[in-house]
Amino acid sequence: MSVHSKLYEGKAKILYTTDDPQVLLADFKDDATAFNAQKRGSIVGKGKINCSISTQLFKQLEEYGIKTHFIDSPSQNQMRVKSVKILPLEVVVRNIAAGSLCQQTGLAVGTVLQQPLVEFYYKNDQLGDPLLTRDRLLLLKLATAEQVDAITNLALQINEFLSGFWQQCSITLVDFKLEFGLDSKQQILLADEISPDTCRLWDSAEADPNRRVMDKDRFRRDLGNVEDAYQEVLQRVLQVVEIKN
Amino acid sequence: MSVHSKLYEGKAKILYTTDDPQVLLADFKDDATAFNAQKRGSIVGKGKINCSISTQLFKQLEEYGIKTHFIDSPSQNQMRVKSVKILPLEVVVRNIAAGSLCQQTGLAVGTVLQQPLVEFYYKNDQLGDPLLTRDRLLLLKLATAEQVDAITNLALQINEFLSGFWQQCSITLVDFKLEFGLDSKQQILLADEISPDTCRLWDSAEADPNRRVMDKDRFRRDLGNVEDAYQEVLQRVLQVVEIKN
Ligand SMILES: Nc1ncnc2c1ncn2[C@@H]1O[C@H](COP(=O)(O)OP(=O)(O)OP(=O)(O)O)[C@@H](O)[C@H]1O
Ligand SMILES: Nc1ncnc2c1ncn2[C@@H]1O[C@H](COP(=O)(O)OP(=O)(O)OP(=O)(O)O)[C@@H](O)[C@H]1O
Ligand SMILES: [Mg+2]
Ligand SMILES: [Mg+2]
Repeated sequence: MSVHSKLYEGKAKILYTTDDPQVLLADFKDDATAFNAQKRGSIVGKGKINCSISTQLFKQLEEYGIKTHFIDSPSQNQMRVKSVKILPLEVVVRNIAAGSLCQQTGLAVGTVLQQPLVEFYYKNDQLGDPLLTRDRLLLLKLATAEQVDAITNLALQINEFLSGFWQQCSITLVDFKLEFGLDSKQQILLADEISPDTCRLWDSAEADPNRRVMDKDRFRRDLGNVEDAYQEVLQRVLQVVEIKN
Repeated sequence: MSVHSKLYEGKAKILYTTDDPQVLLADFKDDATAFNAQKRGSIVGKGKINCSISTQLFKQLEEYGIKTHFIDSPSQNQMRVKSVKILPLEVVVRNIAAGSLCQQTGLAVGTVLQQPLVEFYYKNDQLGDPLLTRDRLLLLKLATAEQVDAITNLALQINEFLSGFWQQCSITLVDFKLEFGLDSKQQILLADEISPDTCRLWDSAEADPNRRVMDKDRFRRDLGNVEDAYQEVLQRVLQVVEIKN
């Protein structure tokens, strides 16, 4: 595989074209941003860690029957993926109230939701990724009603699998963000990444609201030991995957 | 009817109890606020104007078959209403994109919506009246699913009637906010007020984006001639009602 030009540089990854027009190479960076890129920094080793965690989770999800963009990981911080047209949606699944849900509803952080909540946000940095109602999503033609329903179902299935997987890691999956894209046949594929950058992960054995945090909230809220937390998440993932195989 | 004690003083109205526990007296004030009460002022004559406009519209809606809290108007700035338990929802119906819809979606002000949009906001000043998805509304138990569906239908019917009524006034009904409450039999009644404080009203004959504004946006955006606009709206309403009778 020969890598061609840089296609797009995002906040966490660089995408390169390859000799196969259907295949992209994603290069995971150590750069970290939060609050719509108002806060910037770097987490040493994050690129490799997030690429490795994502690789394992995409493999597991494929085995579970979820179609993803994952092809393989030619090096620790690189992933070959199927090129898709990303739908401009951030699909958030919530099991426990945290973050903007609490700020916007007054629900206490840590409130266990009786059923998972699937939410859609407009993936639009200029507008600040606002929450969408179903009607607004359809009005803006960000996806069709059929796609919204299919994605909602996929998100719930993915949550079902991942909640169990993270539980085996002694980690509580609080919430997470997914991106979906359409391949050349208009098939919906799970894309982007699944990592401590995109999930809220709480150490199940830890009750302290700061100490339990194993995800990007350590960076957002300056809780310290960010690299250690990311590294610990990867170790637990690798351990569980090893036992499974 | 003897008026008892002040029950609640809001930003635009004071509610008094009466000798009938099922009846409240709403006293419409000239006070004006915007941006969650960060901007404060007064619009001379607003109390009488808004009470008079609301009175006419509630009467018309009752004739159209919509159940409202309206009983009668004992004086120009006072309305007797059925006491209800207000649902903590601001129900917004939109025919044309304006205000927060544009800010949050990037839609251009003035975009005609192919079908009216019914939106629910959490009536909670502390949280800044945030937009609700259906799932969030149900999660917070702000209403039951049946109530949400009934209110959506009512809001669309009210929009159907009011759009036509305002059109007869040569006014375009851009969007408006409704409040609903439950009476002692758990019946849903349209409550609060319908006025230039709660509707976006554009003079149909006027194309200029500032000159066409006949509602509280004149106050919000310091467009001047606020009293005149409110007074003109009332005159047109009274004219159309007179022709109808
Ligand atoms: N399989 C794929 N095909 C095409 N694009 C993809 C694929 N997977 C992820 N992307 C996109 O790659 C881009 C780079 O990822 P990165 O996480 O760095 O972006 P970001 O800065 O977080 O967000 P933004 O999308 O706003 O740039 C993202 O826009 C993401 O949606
Ligand atoms: N029929 C009714 N029975 C009981 N309360 C009502 C009725 N109609 C309106 N209300 C309530 O009267 C209150 C006073 O009205 P007003 O418009 O001044 O309130 P506000 O300041 O805009 O909003 P807030 O409700 O946040 O105080 C509002 O809370 C409104 O919901
Ligand atoms: Mg990203
Ligand atoms: Mg009010």
